[in-house]
Amino acid sequence: MTITDKIFVDLNAATMGGSNLPYGMVEDAAIVVRDGVIDWVGPRIDLPDTYKALTTNSLGGRIVTPGLIDCHTHIVHGGDRAVEFEMRLNGASYEEVARAGGGIVSTVKATRSATEAELLAVALPRIDALIAEGVTSIEIKSGYGLDTQTELRMLRVARSIGARRPIRVKTTFLGAHATPAEYAGKDDTYINDVCIPALRAAHAEGLVDAVDGFCEGIAFQPEQIARVFDVAQELGLPVKLHAEQLSNIGGAKLAAQYGALSADHIEYLDEEGVIAMAQAGTVAVILPGAFYTLRETQAPPIDLLRKHGVPMALATDINPGSSPLNSLLLTLNMGCTLFRMTPEEALRGATQHAAHALGVTDAGSIAKGMYADLAVWDIKHPAELAYRIGFNPLYMRIFGGTS
Amino acid sequence: MTITDKIFVDLNAATMGGSNLPYGMVEDAAIVVRDGVIDWVGPRIDLPDTYKALTTNSLGGRIVTPGLIDCHTHIVHGGDRAVEFEMRLNGASYEEVARAGGGIVSTVKATRSATEAELLAVALPRIDALIAEGVTSIEIKSGYGLDTQTELRMLRVARSIGARRPIRVKTTFLGAHATPAEYAGKDDTYINDVCIPALRAAHAEGLVDAVDGFCEGIAFQPEQIARVFDVAQELGLPVKLHAEQLSNIGGAKLAAQYGALSADHIEYLDEEGVIAMAQAGTVAVILPGAFYTLRETQAPPIDLLRKHGVPMALATDINPGSSPLNSLLLTLNMGCTLFRMTPEEALRGATQHAAHALGVTDAGSIAKGMYADLAVWDIKHPAELAYRIGFNPLYMRIFGGTS
Ligand SMILES: [Zn+2]
Ligand SMILES: [Zn+2]
Repeated sequence: MTITDKIFVDLNAATMGGSNLPYGMVEDAAIVVRDGVIDWVGPRIDLPDTYKALTTNSLGGRIVTPGLIDCHTHIVHGGDRAVEFEMRLNGASYEEVARAGGGIVSTVKATRSATEAELLAVALPRIDALIAEGVTSIEIKSGYGLDTQTELRMLRVARSIGARRPIRVKTTFLGAHATPAEYAGKDDTYINDVCIPALRAAHAEGLVDAVDGFCEGIAFQPEQIARVFDVAQELGLPVKLHAEQLSNIGGAKLAAQYGALSADHIEYLDEEGVIAMAQAGTVAVILPGAFYTLRETQAPPIDLLRKHGVPMALATDINPGSSPLNSLLLTLNMGCTLFRMTPEEALRGATQHAAHALGVTDAGSIAKGMYADLAVWDIKHPAELAYRIGFNPLYMRIFGGTS
Repeated sequence: MTITDKIFVDLNAATMGGSNLPYGMVEDAAIVVRDGVIDWVGPRIDLPDTYKALTTNSLGGRIVTPGLIDCHTHIVHGGDRAVEFEMRLNGASYEEVARAGGGIVSTVKATRSATEAELLAVALPRIDALIAEGVTSIEIKSGYGLDTQTELRMLRVARSIGARRPIRVKTTFLGAHATPAEYAGKDDTYINDVCIPALRAAHAEGLVDAVDGFCEGIAFQPEQIARVFDVAQELGLPVKLHAEQLSNIGGAKLAAQYGALSADHIEYLDEEGVIAMAQAGTVAVILPGAFYTLRETQAPPIDLLRKHGVPMALATDINPGSSPLNSLLLTLNMGCTLFRMTPEEALRGATQHAAHALGVTDAGSIAKGMYADLAVWDIKHPAELAYRIGFNPLYMRIFGGTS
């Protein structure tokens, strides 16, 4: 044992897996940390004698959950869209906004013109806000470069965040996010000449943990996404997909065929797609921030996902256009309020199931062998995390055993 | 001049009144503070020589707004309703929740059984969260006691918050919030025998800045509210009203007849009621948190309020049942996203118009004679305050000239 090994006591652990009670609750628990990893968790009275020499840290009877995991973000990007937000609310049409340089085009422009240092500088306050509410792992996508150089720059920034802050970062290549202006009307050429070569280059640099796309009438067709996924498969990279957000064109089914980690958004998913996801073990990533911001009315098929046992994750989707939502706690509330998820489903969606959506097996629950990534809360019941709106009851965040 | 007098420079001031530009913007402004009050504001180049000996504080080119004002809260209360929130999402009916002791009854019970110290202890973290996002004034209502002793205790706690924290508190007596269980079916008796005597007692103790009621089919009828308002008038206290939240029973019109400071919620307000408010100078307090939480579909008549020039305020309505929303910044976003208010209307609603809703004339804008209550933001454009969701860009909060 090392000097940093320790035991946390005087806590109720919402382990999200370690018991048959709701939230996997273990009351009056002890959590043993060795080398930054959980070595033992259980009722304190059952603590093996071998651990009794370790330093004991009291958490004052508080509730401990796994550190939160935000499994779908576009948190690295240049610029913002506040002026466009204001134009729209002042009655400007989409054409007027576009003529003023708004829309995703403006984010691509701002991202392309930003240096690595500049992209990092604007991303860190957003990261810090997530850290302040107990987030210990985050997924970060590229997709605002849409040229090889900028896609790689975004991913390098994403990687560097993990070195600058106590947070685990999973990177996702999202070259198939949109067709840039210079390839307007030539989606296939963009996929073949830019997106796929950029993916290969990013992978060669070790920058890619997963490959994503935006499958939608206004973005890419399933057959275009399939070409990108074929390359991902060749490179041994897992895939995930923005699917069925605004219409149903079979994106989730395609994702399932490729054994995708997740299909995300899925407001318009039908039962056939749900069954395909269930069979493939694909996680449903629910993104209420975009639904809220875009004032959509079709909720994802939560009941069908439950019926077929598809695990549901919840994420911020933080991006400057359709979801400038920078709080995973608020996302829990939105999942419950807007989509009628239960508080337990919501918390599982930002811990255990979020880990599954990232292919992560060493985080997301409080169990032996998991990283000692924990959030300690000033609450009496875990449902409070989803119940409150815009309030952060975090008492302490523990990352790899260190607070 | 005293040692604490100072000048703030290197700032863009969204004065909410000091110029004809949107947000009353004054670029490269100077703000002179004397004895905690704004003595001068304007373009820095116009700064009179008389001030040039004062200490200069650079705000680094940031945007400064008036300190935010939350003009409608129930922030002092016992207990929470997280378990009830969870029961409902697990499919429990209203009857089942009620049988389990849920609903407002549970908050009344928890509030009645809490001491002054206990009520204060649970309110302060909520207050601190508002302070952390630049709130410098807050309104706090009673209304979970529904007996004289507890109504007074709530108001004493509200008053004491102003002494414990750097925030200005306005108290509102809300005895006519609901009929307590022990008077079930005897609303008139409750109004006559409890509510009105409690109002007189609270006023005698100097605890009441305004008088409020809940005028609704499920609460009190206009004629019952009128009896309370008559007493308020006799005591020289201004009134305000929860009106037209779930139906239109003429509450806003009644409030206007009494020259109310504000009518609040008003989702079901019609044009006749809007005109009555316009003529009386009654502020419309918009509460998107309750609309969001209750999943209402009827938005307040924003266009009619604009048409007739009724000033709109925005507030959290923080309460444990219908709006456990503890962020005024998030409320700005909700006002824009859910009700299509503009970011400027939203910010004015949490500054200048919120002050009007409280009858406050010395806060809510950056102008000579106002308290030097300021919020300094790490943003480039004031629209960002409403654009972001669950993100707090506060750089510095200045209360009475002191940061
Ligand atoms: Zn996305
Ligand atoms: Zn209220």
